Amino acid sequence: MKRILLLGAGRSASSLIAYLLNNAAPENWHLTIGDITVTHLRPVLEPFSFAEAIVFDVHDEAQRAEEVGKADLVISLLPAVFHIQVAKECLVQEKNLITASYVTPEFLELHQEAQEKNLTILMESGLDPGIDHMSAMQIIRRIQAEGGTLTSFKSFTGGLVAPESDTNPWRYKFTWNPRNVVLAGQGTAKYIKNGAYKYIPYHQLFQRTDEFYVDGYGHFEGYANRDSLSYREPYGLLNIPTMLRGTLRRPGYCQAWDVFVQLGLTDDSYTLDNSEGMTYRSYLEAFLPPATDGQSIEECLSLYLGIPLEGDVMHKLAWLGLFSDKPVELAGATPAQVLEKILKEKWTLSPGDKDMIVMQHLFEYELDGEKREITSSLVAIGDDEIQTAMAKTVGLPVGILAKLMLQERISHRGVVIPIYSELYEPVLEELKEFGIDFVEQERVMVS
Amino acid sequence: MKRILLLGAGRSASSLIAYLLNNAAPENWHLTIGDITVTHLRPVLEPFSFAEAIVFDVHDEAQRAEEVGKADLVISLLPAVFHIQVAKECLVQEKNLITASYVTPEFLELHQEAQEKNLTILMESGLDPGIDHMSAMQIIRRIQAEGGTLTSFKSFTGGLVAPESDTNPWRYKFTWNPRNVVLAGQGTAKYIKNGAYKYIPYHQLFQRTDEFYVDGYGHFEGYANRDSLSYREPYGLLNIPTMLRGTLRRPGYCQAWDVFVQLGLTDDSYTLDNSEGMTYRSYLEAFLPPATDGQSIEECLSLYLGIPLEGDVMHKLAWLGLFSDKPVELAGATPAQVLEKILKEKWTLSPGDKDMIVMQHLFEYELDGEKREITSSLVAIGDDEIQTAMAKTVGLPVGILAKLMLQERISHRGVVIPIYSELYEPVLEELKEFGIDFVEQERVMVS
Repeated sequence: MKRILLLGAGRSASSLIAYLLNNAAPENWHLTIGDITVTHLRPVLEPFSFAEAIVFDVHDEAQRAEEVGKADLVISLLPAVFHIQVAKECLVQEKNLITASYVTPEFLELHQEAQEKNLTILMESGLDPGIDHMSAMQIIRRIQAEGGTLTSFKSFTGGLVAPESDTNPWRYKFTWNPRNVVLAGQGTAKYIKNGAYKYIPYHQLFQRTDEFYVDGYGHFEGYANRDSLSYREPYGLLNIPTMLRGTLRRPGYCQAWDVFVQLGLTDDSYTLDNSEGMTYRSYLEAFLPPATDGQSIEECLSLYLGIPLEGDVMHKLAWLGLFSDKPVELAGATPAQVLEKILKEKWTLSPGDKDMIVMQHLFEYELDGEKREITSSLVAIGDDEIQTAMAKTVGLPVGILAKLMLQERISHRGVVIPIYSELYEPVLEELKEFGIDFVEQERVMVS
Repeated sequence: MKRILLLGAGRSASSLIAYLLNNAAPENWHLTIGDITVTHLRPVLEPFSFAEAIVFDVHDEAQRAEEVGKADLVISLLPAVFHIQVAKECLVQEKNLITASYVTPEFLELHQEAQEKNLTILMESGLDPGIDHMSAMQIIRRIQAEGGTLTSFKSFTGGLVAPESDTNPWRYKFTWNPRNVVLAGQGTAKYIKNGAYKYIPYHQLFQRTDEFYVDGYGHFEGYANRDSLSYREPYGLLNIPTMLRGTLRRPGYCQAWDVFVQLGLTDDSYTLDNSEGMTYRSYLEAFLPPATDGQSIEECLSLYLGIPLEGDVMHKLAWLGLFSDKPVELAGATPAQVLEKILKEKWTLSPGDKDMIVMQHLFEYELDGEKREITSSLVAIGDDEIQTAMAKTVGLPVGILAKLMLQERISHRGVVIPIYSELYEPVLEELKEFGIDFVEQERVMVS
């Protein structure tokens, strides 16, 4: 019997837990799930003799050592900042680890020790990062094997709402950590276009969008992710002239979100002097120039940012209640924390709401003197507001990779991301069984 | 004989050194001036038996201890980051200290120990901060003594060029640390207007300017400084409805500078991937959206930021050579470092150039049921590109305060800024002898 320790049993873990439970009997696994609160898990695990939930505090050094020590494989879905402590414990006790989070410089420092100890710390194994790497690499390697030369690679992913739940003017609801959505894109986005480096400062990011189209699902817009350059090396695309990764939203979202950026509402670096005494309206007003006599706050905003008074952007803002006298009721808050609170009231999934994951890769390459283009698109729809497409697409690849690891089918050691065929081929194959499948279109471009 | 240790002998120290040398004989001082290089000082000090220059390395702990130990008073004009080490040595050896830099949280932690040891660490004693505090407090205390209630206080200062040296389209040259000019305003500006807190994010700062007028010197524009709120308490204006401090430039400067901010050229948080291979033109291009076919970089910029192709802003940018193929020749540079290099080539004072300091305070107050307004303005012109108005207005108040301190006429202990009459009255009085004097206008406002 192999023992799996899963740390972090939040909402995004539901599909992973289901996958692990379903595979536990045939694979002869024992599953321990640890989190700060696990009462919600007890009824779920009750029927299964091979699964248990434990109250787990990542800051409790003794417990960390004890539980990692009992496991054959550790999976961490904890908030990303806690992974490193878990990883260090795994190194000490010589256990393999899987997470869905980005490789940070701290993790790179563990690479050599993990290699020397014959261990695998498998990161970026969820959706984005995760499925994006796997599905892109499968096509990149195929093009290269055929003798093609890639000239452009763009990859965009969005966590959105399914058409039947697309019921608000923003065409967006929270299906992931709201705080991360509010802070998304801060810093400078870097990419390369026709051989020239391009830098987009945060305050221009939501104005520099590209358009996307997915058959059957319509139009989307995308903004650039922070660093598209760092994946050129692991992807084997060091000399590619154009490479851009980004985030998808429905058309119109970015223009309205840009109002928050322009005003400074997404700033998380200082606390407001009087957030507990503010209303939604006075919160907004604090970021506007002083109104002239008789000018309404709506008129002031319209004039300040050049937004039509009767247009779609104003409608989106009004729908959030930003012009209302509703009290903020949040003490010592940053602008971003107040915005998060306001958005949560309106953007939370309702019972029965279905989310939707959209991913699209666009490849341009040259083969035998011809210019060719491949578009590969994924759409995944959630079952409901609990079994979301986000939980499936993040959790299932982690689960499948856990199975591969316990079956000793993963040969790469050190800090690894799933860019190797021994990882992406079986994962993408098994994901199809869950309806997570890409649609590919290829065409020769007329020059 | 009293011994003064002056640390930092850069360009801004020239007037202070002259003041200290002139007062040394009558006051019976010995002056030691320490800096990393002092060769330029040797001929200046040669005639004076009571003055010496020493090579001083602030990082050399033993030397720091030795030199501070020999002094009766330490003055630091070193870069602001080094003051704290000097201050801690002064506390250990129980010496008084004067600097022209801002009180930081680190310095506030020294307040109690300095008080207990009966020491004075006198900060913010130059121009801005310095003369601004002193001249404002003199008027604020006078208004309050007459029974008036302040309703608004605005204070703006600029280091500019004198009319006869106002010879470039920006109407600006560097008279102070260029790096600080490039990074000026980063963070969020905070002020209060009619009782409401106002927050301006950096990317809006140079678009939210106020207009100013100084008799005989014409029009100026001002943008808000980072934190106007923190001086309400030391100034005794905790309940003032409007308070705003800021920086002055000539009209048109801010609109053109805003191009740099909007593009992201003032960002100092990351290094460019290929700065050594860039030209001015390709540097600019890296921050623009990809040009469409046949579009020039000027057209691309014009369209991107809505700048008229033939207007003043474009003229200012072209005059800097931003559209030229001149090589950047700077490896591993941040965007801000490249911009600084480009500006230095064009904004350096030429031989004979005179700089100009402009400061204006605007007070509104109520007295006996009347609304009144006081405008207090200072203009100081430099002698040439060495004896600048900047060096005078920063150095002379420091020198005068040093004299007061050695004459034991300063009673305040701890970390102190010059907001007390025992400090500002004699300083402002003596500054008049150097032509540094405010012109005051008062009027009753018609309601």
